[in-house]
Amino acid sequence: MKEFDLIKRLKATLPTHNSVVAGAGDDCAVLDLGLPHHLVLFKTDAVVEGVHFTTDAAPEKVGHKALARCLSDIAAMAGTPTHAVVTLALPDKFDPARIEAIYAGMNALARKHGVAIVGGETTTNPERLLLSIALLGTVPRSRQVLRSGAKAGDAIFVTGALGGSLSGRHLDFEPRLAEARWLAERFTVHAMIDLSDGLAGDLRHILEASGVGAELLASAIPISRAAKLQSRAESSAKPPLLAALTDGEDFELLFTVASRAAVPLLDAWQAQFPDVKLSCVGKITSQPGLRLSDARGLRDLNLSGYEHFAS
Amino acid sequence: MKEFDLIKRLKATLPTHNSVVAGAGDDCAVLDLGLPHHLVLFKTDAVVEGVHFTTDAAPEKVGHKALARCLSDIAAMAGTPTHAVVTLALPDKFDPARIEAIYAGMNALARKHGVAIVGGETTTNPERLLLSIALLGTVPRSRQVLRSGAKAGDAIFVTGALGGSLSGRHLDFEPRLAEARWLAERFTVHAMIDLSDGLAGDLRHILEASGVGAELLASAIPISRAAKLQSRAESSAKPPLLAALTDGEDFELLFTVASRAAVPLLDAWQAQFPDVKLSCVGKITSQPGLRLSDARGLRDLNLSGYEHFAS
Repeated sequence: MKEFDLIKRLKATLPTHNSVVAGAGDDCAVLDLGLPHHLVLFKTDAVVEGVHFTTDAAPEKVGHKALARCLSDIAAMAGTPTHAVVTLALPDKFDPARIEAIYAGMNALARKHGVAIVGGETTTNPERLLLSIALLGTVPRSRQVLRSGAKAGDAIFVTGALGGSLSGRHLDFEPRLAEARWLAERFTVHAMIDLSDGLAGDLRHILEASGVGAELLASAIPISRAAKLQSRAESSAKPPLLAALTDGEDFELLFTVASRAAVPLLDAWQAQFPDVKLSCVGKITSQPGLRLSDARGLRDLNLSGYEHFAS
Repeated sequence: MKEFDLIKRLKATLPTHNSVVAGAGDDCAVLDLGLPHHLVLFKTDAVVEGVHFTTDAAPEKVGHKALARCLSDIAAMAGTPTHAVVTLALPDKFDPARIEAIYAGMNALARKHGVAIVGGETTTNPERLLLSIALLGTVPRSRQVLRSGAKAGDAIFVTGALGGSLSGRHLDFEPRLAEARWLAERFTVHAMIDLSDGLAGDLRHILEASGVGAELLASAIPISRAAKLQSRAESSAKPPLLAALTDGEDFELLFTVASRAAVPLLDAWQAQFPDVKLSCVGKITSQPGLRLSDARGLRDLNLSGYEHFAS
C-alpha cells in the first residue's frame, strides 16, 4: 500500500462530530466552536531536518519556514492566524544557539502576523531535528473558502511566479495572508488552496474536491526566474514550464472565481498589490480531468510524460 | 546550556497577545477566543519510537498513549477535549497495517471522549515513527484550574497509585477527564497538574508556579503494585517510595484544595468513584521547598540522595 492510499484509509475512519464544518482533507479544519461571528481554523504541519531543510540552512529561516507553511494554509482559507503551539523534537546533539535562532525566526514571523505562541512540547528525536506546529485561526462565518467550491466556467488564478522554490524561496517565502483576506472580502472566491505540491498537483485537489475539470493555458503560467535559471544552468533540470507545474513548495495562492469577476479582480488586485503578480492561468470545465493548452493544441496533462514539456 | 535552561530561555521570548489567559508553562494554554461561556484549551504533545514506546509495543496502545497524554493535560485543567490534529512522521520503512492499528487505538480513545480528529499532516522521519498531536478543549469560564493557585494550608491530593508505570500502565492508562471535571464542578480546586514527571517533580511545578512550599507524608503516598513488584524482583530497582515519588508517566491528577474541603471531598469522591483511589498526601506550606515527613522526622526532599529512601 502506498502512503497516499494509507492516508485515504486513515481519513475514512477518523472520529468526527457536528461542530466540524470541514475536517481532514482541506488546507485547514474548519470548526464551529460557537463563536457568534467566526469559525475556527485548525491546522498542523511539520518540517524535518534533511527532508524540508538541510542541516546547514540558516536556522532563522528554518523557524520562519516551519511557521510560514502553517500560515499559508490559514491563508488558503482566507483566515487570520491567532495562536500556535510547537512540538520541538531535538536530536541527541544540538547547539542551543541554533535552536534559539530557529525560534527567533519563528517568533519574528509570528509577531508580524499577530500570532501568539502559547505553548510547546520538547522531546527527543535522536537523529534529526523536527518541528511540528499546530496553528489556530479564525475566519468570518460564511467567508471561509474551501477547495470544493470550484464551478464550471470559473477563471483560475495564481499569485506570484512558480517553480524553482527549492533554490531558496521555500525558506523565506511570505505567506499570502493579507492577499487572501482581501480577496475573500471583496470577491466571491469559489475555491482556494495554497501551492505546496505544484500547480498541477494542487489544482487536481481542487478539481477532485469540486467534481470538475480544468484547462490550463501554458503561455499564461507564470514561471519564476529561479526555474528559468535552473533550466539554463543544468541540462538535467526540468524545463521551466514543467518546473512551474510540478515543483513543490511555491506557497502561492491558487483560486477560482466566476469568469465575470476576472477582469474586475485583475484591475483591483493591481491597484492593491502592485508588487504581487496575479495571473489568470485557465478555466474550470464541467468535463473532468486536467488539460493543458499550448501551441500544439489541447491535451491531457499527463505528468508522467515529462518529455512533453521540453521546449 | 541544559535543555531545561534552553526551554526557559525560549519561553521568555515567545510572542503573546491579550487573548492569552495562560500561555506556555501550564498543562495547556488557556485562550479567550470570545466564546460567551467558555475558554479554549490548546495543547501539543508527541511520542517518539524508542523514547516513549518500544518498536515492539502493541500499535493500538501506541495510538492510545499518544492521545491519552494530551487528554491528561486537558484533564489537568478540568477541561473537555473537543478536536485534535495529528502529525504523523513515518520512518523510511513502515508497515501500513501498523499505522492503521495505531490510528485504531487513537480513534477508539477519541470516540470514547467525544474528540473529533479533524486533520493531520504526514511527513517523513527516516529513522523512527513520531506522532505529534495537538488538542483543543473547552472549560467553563472561571472554572479553569491552573498550577498557580495553591495556597498555604491546602491539602494535597493524588489519584490512583504511583510508580512503575513503565512496566505497562504508561501505554494503556485512562486519562482522568471525568474525575477532573467532577472535582472542578463540586469543589474549589486551587491548583492541579497531571503527573508526567513523578509526584516530586510535578508537585515542584505547582509550588514554583504558586510561590509556596509543601510537606509530603511518606506513609500516605499511594504506591502502585507495579512499583512494589519491581522493587522485590530486582535488587537494582528503586525502593517503592522512591519509585512513587520519581517515576514518570503516572498520568494521575495531583491537586490542592482548602483543608476544610478535604474530608467532604474524600467522602464525596468515594461515593462517586469507588474504583479510583484518592489519597491526601500532604499539605501546602508558606515555607518554600518540598519536605518529606516519615518515621525519622521531617526533612528536605533531596532526590539526589536516593539512599534516604531505602526501606
